[in-house]
Amino acid sequence: MTLLRSHLSGSWQTGTGDGRPLHDAVTGEEVARISADGLDLAGALEYGRRTGGPALRELTFHQRAALLKALGGHLREHRDELYAVSARTGATLADSKFDVDGGIGVLLAYASKAKRELPNDTVYVEGPVEPLGRGGTFLGQHLLTPLHGVAVQVNAFNFPVWGPLEKLAPAFLAGVPTLVKPASPTAFLTARLIELVVESGLLPDGALQFVAGSLGDCFDHLTGQDLVSFTGSASTAQTLRSHPVIVRNAVRFTAEADSLNLAALGPDAGPGTEEFDLFVRALTTEMTVKAGQKCTAIRRAFVPREHVDAVVEAVSARLASVVVGAPGTDGVRMGALASLDQREEVRRSVKALRDAGRLVSGDPDHVEVAGADADRGAFVSPMLLVGDPDRAEPHEIEAFGPVSTVLPYDSADRLVEYAARGQGSLAGSVVSADPAFVRAVVLGIAPFHGRVHVLNARDAQESTGHGSPLPQLVHGGPGRAGGGEEMGGIRGVLHHMQRTAVQADPDSLAAITGRWVTGAQRHDDGVHPFRKHLEELRPGDCLVAGPRRVTRADVEHFAEFTGDTFYAHMDEAAAAANPLFGQRVAHGYLVVSLAAGLFVDPDPGPVLANFGVDGLRFLTPVRFDDELTVTLTCKQLTPRDSAGYGEVRWDADVTRQDGESVARYDVLTLVAKKDA
Amino acid sequence: MTLLRSHLSGSWQTGTGDGRPLHDAVTGEEVARISADGLDLAGALEYGRRTGGPALRELTFHQRAALLKALGGHLREHRDELYAVSARTGATLADSKFDVDGGIGVLLAYASKAKRELPNDTVYVEGPVEPLGRGGTFLGQHLLTPLHGVAVQVNAFNFPVWGPLEKLAPAFLAGVPTLVKPASPTAFLTARLIELVVESGLLPDGALQFVAGSLGDCFDHLTGQDLVSFTGSASTAQTLRSHPVIVRNAVRFTAEADSLNLAALGPDAGPGTEEFDLFVRALTTEMTVKAGQKCTAIRRAFVPREHVDAVVEAVSARLASVVVGAPGTDGVRMGALASLDQREEVRRSVKALRDAGRLVSGDPDHVEVAGADADRGAFVSPMLLVGDPDRAEPHEIEAFGPVSTVLPYDSADRLVEYAARGQGSLAGSVVSADPAFVRAVVLGIAPFHGRVHVLNARDAQESTGHGSPLPQLVHGGPGRAGGGEEMGGIRGVLHHMQRTAVQADPDSLAAITGRWVTGAQRHDDGVHPFRKHLEELRPGDCLVAGPRRVTRADVEHFAEFTGDTFYAHMDEAAAAANPLFGQRVAHGYLVVSLAAGLFVDPDPGPVLANFGVDGLRFLTPVRFDDELTVTLTCKQLTPRDSAGYGEVRWDADVTRQDGESVARYDVLTLVAKKDA
Repeated sequence: MTLLRSHLSGSWQTGTGDGRPLHDAVTGEEVARISADGLDLAGALEYGRRTGGPALRELTFHQRAALLKALGGHLREHRDELYAVSARTGATLADSKFDVDGGIGVLLAYASKAKRELPNDTVYVEGPVEPLGRGGTFLGQHLLTPLHGVAVQVNAFNFPVWGPLEKLAPAFLAGVPTLVKPASPTAFLTARLIELVVESGLLPDGALQFVAGSLGDCFDHLTGQDLVSFTGSASTAQTLRSHPVIVRNAVRFTAEADSLNLAALGPDAGPGTEEFDLFVRALTTEMTVKAGQKCTAIRRAFVPREHVDAVVEAVSARLASVVVGAPGTDGVRMGALASLDQREEVRRSVKALRDAGRLVSGDPDHVEVAGADADRGAFVSPMLLVGDPDRAEPHEIEAFGPVSTVLPYDSADRLVEYAARGQGSLAGSVVSADPAFVRAVVLGIAPFHGRVHVLNARDAQESTGHGSPLPQLVHGGPGRAGGGEEMGGIRGVLHHMQRTAVQADPDSLAAITGRWVTGAQRHDDGVHPFRKHLEELRPGDCLVAGPRRVTRADVEHFAEFTGDTFYAHMDEAAAAANPLFGQRVAHGYLVVSLAAGLFVDPDPGPVLANFGVDGLRFLTPVRFDDELTVTLTCKQLTPRDSAGYGEVRWDADVTRQDGESVARYDVLTLVAKKDA
Repeated sequence: MTLLRSHLSGSWQTGTGDGRPLHDAVTGEEVARISADGLDLAGALEYGRRTGGPALRELTFHQRAALLKALGGHLREHRDELYAVSARTGATLADSKFDVDGGIGVLLAYASKAKRELPNDTVYVEGPVEPLGRGGTFLGQHLLTPLHGVAVQVNAFNFPVWGPLEKLAPAFLAGVPTLVKPASPTAFLTARLIELVVESGLLPDGALQFVAGSLGDCFDHLTGQDLVSFTGSASTAQTLRSHPVIVRNAVRFTAEADSLNLAALGPDAGPGTEEFDLFVRALTTEMTVKAGQKCTAIRRAFVPREHVDAVVEAVSARLASVVVGAPGTDGVRMGALASLDQREEVRRSVKALRDAGRLVSGDPDHVEVAGADADRGAFVSPMLLVGDPDRAEPHEIEAFGPVSTVLPYDSADRLVEYAARGQGSLAGSVVSADPAFVRAVVLGIAPFHGRVHVLNARDAQESTGHGSPLPQLVHGGPGRAGGGEEMGGIRGVLHHMQRTAVQADPDSLAAITGRWVTGAQRHDDGVHPFRKHLEELRPGDCLVAGPRRVTRADVEHFAEFTGDTFYAHMDEAAAAANPLFGQRVAHGYLVVSLAAGLFVDPDPGPVLANFGVDGLRFLTPVRFDDELTVTLTCKQLTPRDSAGYGEVRWDADVTRQDGESVARYDVLTLVAKKDA
């Protein structure tokens, strides 16, 4: 049997020795062997830092997003190959899709989010400019730049494809290279994934490395610029987190670990309601998908005391119809655990849970198996318990398999208290159509949860389910769940970057960020900026236009024309009584309309459209006979790599005769490229 | 000599035993004794969780801000008492102001920022609603709720007032109680601060506790809901960070530790330039303020090789004029170190730095002292070295006193490389007027810095200086600097809260957040919402108005009236050629003006003003004879506790005859209270 290959320092490499055997979870056959003995992981880290990092940092966020998208497409074309290997981990086809399609989905979602929410640039400018002095000569601005290290992934066995991809996407977008270390039992599937990635030739050299086997002395070589993302058991998380080099160098360390996730049925959701059925289905699904080997699976099912019997009956009935067996065999709905070791661990945990409750469905020692040998494969039956929520066990023992405990509760307050006994969870579901109950429970359990899912008849059709982390949302939980945060949209990207507060004069800040900021030099070269194509525009290009007097007749005409006869514009006495105005004032919408009249260049040209306005504030009332001037300044350019135009954000500052700003806003336009 | 008192579990308490003596840094006299032996710190944690936490969580962000502001005012009234005690720590009056006024400034800045940037509510809703399904029935929203634990502060000796206050402000605003543990040498000053806080009676019981002395077994009782913020040495940071309970419970741990901060003189800034003088002044100031005992002080002064002699000469000349001595003595510009132990440590560090450089100013073993006994007080002279940047020592040895090393460099690239050898710093200054150099160096060193300060003639007058962390900006640095992030405006508040991704149907989400979201129920009770006072409005209150037909004549009239004759509105052929429109379209500003005409209620009433518009997007072009309808829905209410009105955010959705949205935006109004 051959050893799994690692891909390090730009080439495929194989560890020394015979390696440890990895087994087919269904048949018990040996699938491959694993060893990273003798591989140079310190060298791989340095290769990532010297080769992968610089290559990634040369690309803009949009360019990295385009590569991720292409990679997602490539993997999608080859997903059948991944399903085939995945079946050997005990996964049914549905389980495999959850893992494989889920992982590809993360790549594509991140690619799309990056193009929409990140600039086409290498620096991320975060939040508004902070004025640090009254004169406007000293400004603060947070910006984020990629860390110069490597993101080391230590993954769990249960998602051999989704795991590495959900961690890769944000690191890659940030410009940080990745080193993937899969859990051994299912490493042969991750190895196939990495082969597909390498064969695609899409990623820059050094951007993604892979070690099949132990990380050896890798952690001894981490610096404060590297990161570690861990998914797995709490005990391993503790060992890694307290590694002396992690501690000494304050290496960013995130963990997703054990979690006693809950689902709570609302008191409104008794038998006969749609919510009751949704709860029963969700619980059964969470128990059986991936044979319950999901960090997010429901372990604690809280049920109003009066509905416990009905829930147990309904769930047991559904579980009884679940056929356990070899993936691909007709009718099989639940596959095997990932390994025989896992089965032993599940049995041990169920034994401990039974000390504090009773088993009402399933049998830890016996299961009917279709299409496979029950003794050779890592099969168990789904098991439902009813427990005592005042005991510690149901809140502390995570049976990492198709196992869940029903726990009765008597009030929303008690439910919230019980939830906290989980000491931090990844996901909780509240199944209820009652907004008051939902609000009380969601806000009550939120401090202990990374994600809370509300399920009822109103959202069931579109709900992605209790157990599915989504790339848009943070995945992780406090305390026992590891304290980590992954994904969460752009947050996950920023996690791989260093936030730096820059303090500078406006011209320096503009040079650093590539954006015009208030107080920085403007340039008016005599060409109307609306006559410039995207490539010709520069931040700071500006136009000053006006003045335009606003008369009483203008205001009255505008009121009549638009129908906006608000008293502040039209009623002398009422306007005088208004604490902010003291007299009649012009409409804000009139001011911005007149400003546009001043700054637009009417002739056909590269400006295609004004697609929006951001942050419009009316700063000072405009009174009759005030004269308006507008200064329009090019602030930020976002070229689109895949379109003949880009977005241009302009600062519009409308001032009156004494120089006071009366309105300030960003005008958003699409501007054509010259060579489009 | 009496023991310093602790304030725990609602009362003043004193440890057992004689305690350790604390000395006046100037005279060597014993000031107080310190011991926390026998104090119940586990009980104090529990008191914070059971008493302080719930009391704080009942308050809104604005109410907490009002208390912080009041506390700041109270301390300001008593600052002379703090200055007097501060002098015994070796601080000059200027040093004391840096510490005391700086700390009060953080309270006031946070109070003001919270009122502007946080809702008047107990939950923080972060970022936009994420649509998770096409039908709009399943939405995602991140929200943050206060952790239910205690923020344990472990502070450094150098800022006995600023340290606790800069950590208190964000925790308090978040709704999390604090336990302050000062460093022993200057704990008598923090003790006086806490007495003032307690005497003020402003803070809820349990919101701020204080232990003078060791934390004992406190860490053994931390949970995943508690936090630790540490400022001090890297070695102590490591010990605390790897505490088994911190590791096991994933306790949020932030550290500010050692930092070899740099200042770099630009090649443009030779002798005779204003920047040269600014550099010399900044370096001298950073060396002597607080006798160089600032985490942010400049330790590495990078100078273009050709300017090294000039810098050494100029800095030495300034240092020679610095009078060292007892605070308050005439002419004294630099006080004592905080303790004789510190003086020994500085001497040791200077000895090690001299192995890799030469001392060009000052003498570790001798100093002229004014107004005090040089042998009894912890005095040292300011010391300047010239070092070799290719040696390790200047990048690794932090002499925590009035000590800095000038390091020659030859190019911006080399400078960036040297900067990285500090392995993570809190603050760096770039002194240059050349935007290209500034951009290259700032972006080059950003991944290794928490804050970068650009100094030149343009911002010098308003610059707050290299060494001053500001509440608006993050304070902290990667790697050696501890990896922490403090303050940073609202970021620092959110650090004390749990981010939870909520997935729900619109009605549930609206109930949870207290805000109307798209898809949630609207209510039209027949009363125009502009007729309702702040107390009468509810999220979801709405008005549907229209239709209003937009004719060709309207568009042409609007163009003529405003002057906005952009081709897309006026030029048939050019509009047809535009890739987005294909035919003439109405002005976006006309659409929003007409929409306002539809939704405003003209009569005097509680709506005082429309002060702005957010996130306006023109989604579909409006063509001639399209008919517009507007739906205005109350989205969010922000009552102002100290004003007769509040802010109301409305969703405006302008649709055309087929129901398609043509424009969507938030309208911001001020609405009066009924009883104002």
